[in-house]
Amino acid sequence: MGGETAPGRMTVADFDELFEDIKTWGTWGPDDEIGTLNYLTPDRVAAATSVVESGRTVTLSLPVNTVAGPDTPAPALHYMVIVHDIAFGDGDGRFATDFIGIDFHGESQSHVDALNHVSYRGKLYNDRPVELVTSRGSSTHSVDAYRHGIVGRGVMIDIPRLRGVDWLEPGEWVTGEEIEAAEEAQGVRLEEGDVFLFRTGQHRRRLALGAWDNNVVGRAGLHPTALRLLSERRVAVFAADGDGETIPSPVDGVSYPMHPLKITAMGMCAFDNLQFEDLAAACEEEGRDVFLFAAGPLRIGGATGSPINPIAIF
Amino acid sequence: MGGETAPGRMTVADFDELFEDIKTWGTWGPDDEIGTLNYLTPDRVAAATSVVESGRTVTLSLPVNTVAGPDTPAPALHYMVIVHDIAFGDGDGRFATDFIGIDFHGESQSHVDALNHVSYRGKLYNDRPVELVTSRGSSTHSVDAYRHGIVGRGVMIDIPRLRGVDWLEPGEWVTGEEIEAAEEAQGVRLEEGDVFLFRTGQHRRRLALGAWDNNVVGRAGLHPTALRLLSERRVAVFAADGDGETIPSPVDGVSYPMHPLKITAMGMCAFDNLQFEDLAAACEEEGRDVFLFAAGPLRIGGATGSPINPIAIF
Amino acid sequence: MGGETAPGRMTVADFDELFEDIKTWGTWGPDDEIGTLNYLTPDRVAAATSVVESGRTVTLSLPVNTVAGPDTPAPALHYMVIVHDIAFGDGDGRFATDFIGIDFHGESQSHVDALNHVSYRGKLYNDRPVELVTSRGSSTHSVDAYRHGIVGRGVMIDIPRLRGVDWLEPGEWVTGEEIEAAEEAQGVRLEEGDVFLFRTGQHRRRLALGAWDNNVVGRAGLHPTALRLLSERRVAVFAADGDGETIPSPVDGVSYPMHPLKITAMGMCAFDNLQFEDLAAACEEEGRDVFLFAAGPLRIGGATGSPINPIAIF
Amino acid sequence: MGGETAPGRMTVADFDELFEDIKTWGTWGPDDEIGTLNYLTPDRVAAATSVVESGRTVTLSLPVNTVAGPDTPAPALHYMVIVHDIAFGDGDGRFATDFIGIDFHGESQSHVDALNHVSYRGKLYNDRPVELVTSRGSSTHSVDAYRHGIVGRGVMIDIPRLRGVDWLEPGEWVTGEEIEAAEEAQGVRLEEGDVFLFRTGQHRRRLALGAWDNNVVGRAGLHPTALRLLSERRVAVFAADGDGETIPSPVDGVSYPMHPLKITAMGMCAFDNLQFEDLAAACEEEGRDVFLFAAGPLRIGGATGSPINPIAIF
Repeated sequence: MGGETAPGRMTVADFDELFEDIKTWGTWGPDDEIGTLNYLTPDRVAAATSVVESGRTVTLSLPVNTVAGPDTPAPALHYMVIVHDIAFGDGDGRFATDFIGIDFHGESQSHVDALNHVSYRGKLYNDRPVELVTSRGSSTHSVDAYRHGIVGRGVMIDIPRLRGVDWLEPGEWVTGEEIEAAEEAQGVRLEEGDVFLFRTGQHRRRLALGAWDNNVVGRAGLHPTALRLLSERRVAVFAADGDGETIPSPVDGVSYPMHPLKITAMGMCAFDNLQFEDLAAACEEEGRDVFLFAAGPLRIGGATGSPINPIAIF
Repeated sequence: MGGETAPGRMTVADFDELFEDIKTWGTWGPDDEIGTLNYLTPDRVAAATSVVESGRTVTLSLPVNTVAGPDTPAPALHYMVIVHDIAFGDGDGRFATDFIGIDFHGESQSHVDALNHVSYRGKLYNDRPVELVTSRGSSTHSVDAYRHGIVGRGVMIDIPRLRGVDWLEPGEWVTGEEIEAAEEAQGVRLEEGDVFLFRTGQHRRRLALGAWDNNVVGRAGLHPTALRLLSERRVAVFAADGDGETIPSPVDGVSYPMHPLKITAMGMCAFDNLQFEDLAAACEEEGRDVFLFAAGPLRIGGATGSPINPIAIF
Repeated sequence: MGGETAPGRMTVADFDELFEDIKTWGTWGPDDEIGTLNYLTPDRVAAATSVVESGRTVTLSLPVNTVAGPDTPAPALHYMVIVHDIAFGDGDGRFATDFIGIDFHGESQSHVDALNHVSYRGKLYNDRPVELVTSRGSSTHSVDAYRHGIVGRGVMIDIPRLRGVDWLEPGEWVTGEEIEAAEEAQGVRLEEGDVFLFRTGQHRRRLALGAWDNNVVGRAGLHPTALRLLSERRVAVFAADGDGETIPSPVDGVSYPMHPLKITAMGMCAFDNLQFEDLAAACEEEGRDVFLFAAGPLRIGGATGSPINPIAIF
Repeated sequence: MGGETAPGRMTVADFDELFEDIKTWGTWGPDDEIGTLNYLTPDRVAAATSVVESGRTVTLSLPVNTVAGPDTPAPALHYMVIVHDIAFGDGDGRFATDFIGIDFHGESQSHVDALNHVSYRGKLYNDRPVELVTSRGSSTHSVDAYRHGIVGRGVMIDIPRLRGVDWLEPGEWVTGEEIEAAEEAQGVRLEEGDVFLFRTGQHRRRLALGAWDNNVVGRAGLHPTALRLLSERRVAVFAADGDGETIPSPVDGVSYPMHPLKITAMGMCAFDNLQFEDLAAACEEEGRDVFLFAAGPLRIGGATGSPINPIAIF
């Protein structure tokens, strides 16, 4: 539970105070729909490309899960539409096509959240009324606001490496102090406009022990107070191999505190359920934890996110 | 139809000869599943990042089409799964989530083709038997072979700009000579490992005149013989605002000649139905047609492609 | 427009008065979820079976529409899951299976409405709050309340036959007086617990002239005041080849008046978009318009209806 | 395993002999697509309605399963399309609609099989080549061949009642002799054109002990040789609370022998995974095991079956 540095439990009042402190509403005008992605200015995108050295590329996504399991109650649908039975030409050429359907916010599907994914006290990010999200989709903060992509300097903070463990156990959280300790140990520093990749080793645990229902059994995450650090540093993107939440929640009476804090209050561009095992191996082999991060969400109008496969480029 | 340089119509025999001439089977070993993406070595990826100057990013994707139309007989499904009716905490925080389902090879959906998408005379790329693709998915050449992303130097060849028109009309084709003329006019040259973005203005026409059934009415494309140029230049990726096909086909008896040629014979990584209008505007404003191209396919096991939103970075 | 007997247009005040007059709330207790289906007592079901003479059976359903068209903006999905590639035994036996997905309230899909399908002034049938229907489904009046089937005496009222036309034109409505005239002409009478099959010839028109967007161009229906007749007669089920609505609506300011009246006020079990052309032919050949009607909704928990194929048995 | 009367295990040669013996191919002409449903002549349909006495109706379907579980690897999709956010009239009326998607041959979904569902040695029922079923659907024996419904005399044969147990255990099979013993004990007899409802108590076991993967752990079924009885009696329909198969299979080298025998050889109309617990209670209360059976498959063109809710009418 973060050892001696564990900041203890929080109340709803603590939560509300934190919410207000890190809230960015209005910072980029009343019509803003991309929040902290504003930190990722073209200059910073250009600078991020200069970190590339070897050109090695690495997926940050899980395979799309199409089989039911403890963390996959609603597996993705993958059906072949055509199987080489449409001829072209003289009948010797044939096509195969398919259909993919994803309930993409599921806990085993890699995805990006849009800023309409979460509300708090009737409000979405930037003071928008929650009523703008209906069963017909959302008229605000659609994932299409991210259509020009999320490209920036990626910095992987590896907590299992810091702690000398294979993975964090469900229920363990990470504080801002521990993030700073990891920065120092890794020789990196989260800067304005960076993509923060927060590794808990969740997928390594899943590969080793099998899937578990991390909504019930628990998952490792960031302590809510650590968002103050991300806020001060003006981090643009929060990408996790879980979703940042610690379950059970450290906040009494708030089951998923990180989501309203990072998304609703901060307007943070957030990636959930990524896969950092290929990345961890690459960081070790490349000898560095900094790289170019590039992701293009599907342009789903009115959607609260998108399935996604972000790429790290070393 | 390409003016005086039109090479005229082709027979199946011509097609078969071309198929053999540009075939890469075995070039990267008998187990290869990524074809021309082998040209995109880490060195070339790294070099590609050095073309970035301003840091401007641009989507190359159409919005996911969820409404039936002449080129959208099977619109994507977008359903809200939860609409802010799952509370967390004290009931003041709520989530919204959704489901997206896409028959992604549809002619109005931006996607990448995997190398198992097309067969010719019973064979997939690299001499694999077509029987490996079944209604349960494909056991070879899945799009997951591209999981580490497609990142390289993008070069947009703009045929409407060369011709001084808004767009190419359905049925018009472009020859290799015209590609070279465009290179000269634009001051660019397709090199080994490049991402070739072939603009016909299809989406501009769609925006201006409305959608049409381009499988029936026709579409503008590349003449099959132009693939000799791409083969010689060792281009890694072919990305089009159509799908490269000219319809009606210039090959007697082969309705979609480009697909077996580029995918089955060449093992070419191919993007279909992209949207190059944002790109064309950016190229004009940035004063150049070369940029970093980055795309990450969804990791759909056994799939013949993926919906995708590639990003251009200037 | 119903000729001299046309009752003219209605105001919202007229609508509200009618709503109150035919409202059945509380009639079958505060927990009732099946409304007028209560009229279909076992005695009446048994009596209905005694009308069978020849044993001829006839479908009352449209084919499931899987192709986009003017009245099919969201076509059903039909994908093969397995195509004879799963062997059993010695490999000589094989299975084929499939997936069907239907946005079943669509105007070209035959379906039954559940009583949670429509609300008026914040209330569902039987004074239930509309908030019970959420994006996770409905906790009241699910179609599963109809799980034991809808079996009763079917009486087809054939307005085109009465009028001597092939079909009613979009925008035409039918009054209670005209229903009574048809009864007299056909020698039938709607009794308590009957299934009222209301034929406008919509599908015959569709077969002859092609599909049209009947939400925009219009459709033929019942005049709202005719519901007084169904209410007095204690009809149990309203089954139409359209959905009962006249479009454009005869009620100023209420686009779809029939739905809240029949479903919300009356608690009427309602079938929409049925196909009565096979039925009309059978009625003519059998020399009668009365038969046994049998339908079993899919048991979809929380759903607002079900796709369905009711059968008429002569 | 059926006690002393167990006929022992079968070889593929036994299977093939049985296949030939009960094969009906050609009986109803070379174009026939409904097989044993031909036994259900209008006369027999009419006669079946005369068995109705009380008018009680009972569902024979499971709820559509939308939650993953041991026998539900691909749960049905149920998404709300609209949740009371489309106003009509003065804004006070609202609609809710939904989407249902079912991989309906799944072992926990009640469905009817079409005659194209199974092939043996390259042939479908009535000597049709298996190649007629492709990834685009089937051009023969579609479930739409059953569009006019399956209406007949239902006879429930209750093996757990005969044996004095709550349910049959996975792996247990039932012989033709035991069917005859049940007939005698129940005072019923399967006649030409009847709907045979074969109760093993599978769903009662599922309710009591929870779901299990009956493809792996096993299920109780009919012994293949019992099909001789159904063949001699000219039974029209086979409806089971499992799917008739005994797993593990009694036939060496044929995992699912009942399917090719009943569907491919006999052309039997077959319902799988029905729910007979409501029925068993009704039979006990009504004091008889004979009733009217009525079912209307969804008219899915090219499909190998349909989800369905058949109704028993006492």
